[in-house]
Amino acid sequence: MTKTENLKKLIRDIPDFPKKGIIFKDITPILKDKVAFKEAVDLLFERYKDKNIDFIISIEARGFILGSALAYKLGCGMIPVRKKGKLPYKTRSVTYDLEYGTDTLEMHEDAVSKGDRVLILDDLLATGGTAKAVCDLVKDSGVVIVEIAFMIELEFLKGRAKLKNHPIFTLLTL
Amino acid sequence: MTKTENLKKLIRDIPDFPKKGIIFKDITPILKDKVAFKEAVDLLFERYKDKNIDFIISIEARGFILGSALAYKLGCGMIPVRKKGKLPYKTRSVTYDLEYGTDTLEMHEDAVSKGDRVLILDDLLATGGTAKAVCDLVKDSGVVIVEIAFMIELEFLKGRAKLKNHPIFTLLTL
Repeated sequence: MTKTENLKKLIRDIPDFPKKGIIFKDITPILKDKVAFKEAVDLLFERYKDKNIDFIISIEARGFILGSALAYKLGCGMIPVRKKGKLPYKTRSVTYDLEYGTDTLEMHEDAVSKGDRVLILDDLLATGGTAKAVCDLVKDSGVVIVEIAFMIELEFLKGRAKLKNHPIFTLLTL
Repeated sequence: MTKTENLKKLIRDIPDFPKKGIIFKDITPILKDKVAFKEAVDLLFERYKDKNIDFIISIEARGFILGSALAYKLGCGMIPVRKKGKLPYKTRSVTYDLEYGTDTLEMHEDAVSKGDRVLILDDLLATGGTAKAVCDLVKDSGVVIVEIAFMIELEFLKGRAKLKNHPIFTLLTL
C-alpha cells in the first residue's frame, strides 16, 4: 500500500455532519496516528523543501495543524488567517459568500510583504471558497503564491475551478 | 540574550483586546519569525524528548500551532480539543465557568485510552480555567498527564493555583 493509500484509509466518514446530507471527512484519526501524521507532513515537506517558501499561510483552525508542523520542518514562518475578530492587531479582511450567508477572514496587515514566497495551506478543498478568499486577501500585497495545498480534495465539488489562476496540490483525492 | 529573552522580545502587547482593560499578548510575531518559531518548538522538544509522550492534547485554536509542530518533532500523535459542535465524531464534553457565562470544550471519545501518556499544551496560562477544563475532560479516561505546558504564563493571574494537582511548565513568564 502506498503512503497516500494508507492515509486515505484512516479518514473517517461522518454522515450528516455538520448538517444532513453532508458526509464529513474526519482527519483526527490521521493526527492521532504518529506514523501517519508524520508521513502526511513529510510528504508535503518533500514537495516544498526546495521551493524557498518564506511563509505558510494557514487557515483557522484545522489548517493550523498541518501548517505549523510543515512550517517547523521547512524552517519557515507561519501566518495565521482567522475568522473575524480573532486576530488582535490591525488586519486586512475579506468577506466571501457561503451557501447561506457570508463569512469573513482576516490576516494581520503586517503579516506578509511584497516578494514573499508563500504557500497557502488548508486541510480540505471542497468548493474552494475559503482558499479563494485567502488569495483575495493577499492579492494586493505583492506576494508570490507558490502553490495552494490541501490535505484532502473532494473532487466532485470542483473547487479547482474557483482557483484556476494558481497551482494547486492535494495530498489525497477523494 | 538567552533564547527565551529573544522570544519574549517578539511578543506584541495589544491594549484593550479583546476588551477594554486587557493587554493581549500577541504571539504572531514569533510564528512569523522562522528562527524564533523553530526555537520555541525546539525548547519544548528538548524538555519532552525523553518523556515517552504518546499524545499532545492541543486546545483550539492557537494551541494547535505549537501542539502540532511539537507532536511532529516528537513523533507522537496530536489530539485536538475544540469548542462545542466542532468535532464531528462522538465526543465527551466539559462545561466550565468564564468571567461572564460558561464555555464548553469537547474531545473525541475515542481520542485517548487508559495508560496513555499525554502532554496538555496551550499557548497561554492566564486564569487556568481552560487547562483545568481539559484536565477534567480526561480525568476519567485513565491517561497519565505528564505535564501541562504553555508558551506564556501571565503570573499575576495565578493560574497555577487552579492546576495545582499537576506539574506545569511555561516557556515564558510575563
